[in-house]
Amino acid sequence: MSSKIGSFKFHIDSYMCDFKEKATLPVIGNFILQAATIHAQQRGFGYEEISKDCSAWVLSRLSIEMLEYPGYDQDITIETWIEDVTRFFTQRCLRFLNQHGKVIGYAKTIWAAIDMQTRRPKDLLSWRPDLMEYIDTSIECPIEKPAKIPEVNGEPVMGYSVRYSDIDINRHMNSIKYMEHTLNIFDLEMFRKNDIRKFEMVYLAEGIFGEKLKLYKQEINPNEFLIDTKRGVESICRSRIVWHK
Amino acid sequence: MSSKIGSFKFHIDSYMCDFKEKATLPVIGNFILQAATIHAQQRGFGYEEISKDCSAWVLSRLSIEMLEYPGYDQDITIETWIEDVTRFFTQRCLRFLNQHGKVIGYAKTIWAAIDMQTRRPKDLLSWRPDLMEYIDTSIECPIEKPAKIPEVNGEPVMGYSVRYSDIDINRHMNSIKYMEHTLNIFDLEMFRKNDIRKFEMVYLAEGIFGEKLKLYKQEINPNEFLIDTKRGVESICRSRIVWHK
Repeated sequence: MSSKIGSFKFHIDSYMCDFKEKATLPVIGNFILQAATIHAQQRGFGYEEISKDCSAWVLSRLSIEMLEYPGYDQDITIETWIEDVTRFFTQRCLRFLNQHGKVIGYAKTIWAAIDMQTRRPKDLLSWRPDLMEYIDTSIECPIEKPAKIPEVNGEPVMGYSVRYSDIDINRHMNSIKYMEHTLNIFDLEMFRKNDIRKFEMVYLAEGIFGEKLKLYKQEINPNEFLIDTKRGVESICRSRIVWHK
Repeated sequence: MSSKIGSFKFHIDSYMCDFKEKATLPVIGNFILQAATIHAQQRGFGYEEISKDCSAWVLSRLSIEMLEYPGYDQDITIETWIEDVTRFFTQRCLRFLNQHGKVIGYAKTIWAAIDMQTRRPKDLLSWRPDLMEYIDTSIECPIEKPAKIPEVNGEPVMGYSVRYSDIDINRHMNSIKYMEHTLNIFDLEMFRKNDIRKFEMVYLAEGIFGEKLKLYKQEINPNEFLIDTKRGVESICRSRIVWHK
């Protein structure tokens, strides 16, 4: 395997599982961020390295497709690589394998690097042209790029305040915590009868400690939902979820 | 080390850390349950084994004392053993070591086995007298046994509904999720200036999906709090938290 591809194995402990004895999607999300973090770190463009440049990676969009979920006490291997670098974004792909080496899912993530002072995106091609050298296309990632998601209006279906458990090591509302709160709008019955086949999320603004966020839901097709997380009228993040029986 | 003592190493990934770049208490709590689960499983009295007897282990009380918290990218080793078995309860101790082998904390947990049909506690001494053989007292666990915690009344300081992310592999509101919600009543400022030195929790009833729970807080000494999680007037769990500057 190309040295541009990172491979990381995770074990599914009991506390990572839902009532179906499978790893939850937010657990897979945490593994995705962990694999991305270590892959970048090992190649000299991780958080620590770019923070010397007063910069930080920010997850802009995320798309996950799961064919099956790893179960309790099983392993999952995540392979990750950079598929593309444009002026303002890197596209990182991930492939998930179960413990028998069978592909059980894919993800695509879009990242920007922001200047910590100005909060503006860095021009990656002039700032870190070496990122191009890490592009690998030897593994196919046959899912669509995460796309724009339209706004959802109407009556909120749930609300929550940003609290201690939502704030992560980067002192922000954690990307995966949005996902956890988003999934919480569904009834247990929905999870009992279906699995999440496809999950997309677009990050638009940042939740701040103590703020109250509200979730809006729209069913656009049978078993396909848009969910919008807002602060007042401003969208913080939006997601699209496709369930599969 | 005695074969009655289990030793389990965990790595602190970024998603396990709070804004102080340290593992959170709920993460330590998850590790405690994971270590307890595997220790019991390896000795023939784990969940799977006793479920054949239509029984399940239930955490009744928990006490944790942390001298320091493991940081990002560090290891923590958890040693665990059974210290005592009485008619209705087993007392499991845990000792935490950092990656240099220094003791950084202890925990004591009290467990009952319940009959899944009747929901009544099993008489451990007649049901599984072999549990006595696993008692070990070669390591000292110099913290108090988790004690009763008085009720807290007054006005609720926070409320939440039990949702998908709260329900665990055992199809119950997860013990550690109570802890996460409990800590969420504190302001970020409290975490910035202090660490949780001591955390005790007593489990009294079970939160059910969709139910609204309310939290009540009382400061009984400077930096010492009681928090009561209730469904109506019934306490679901109570905790005592001691902060340290």
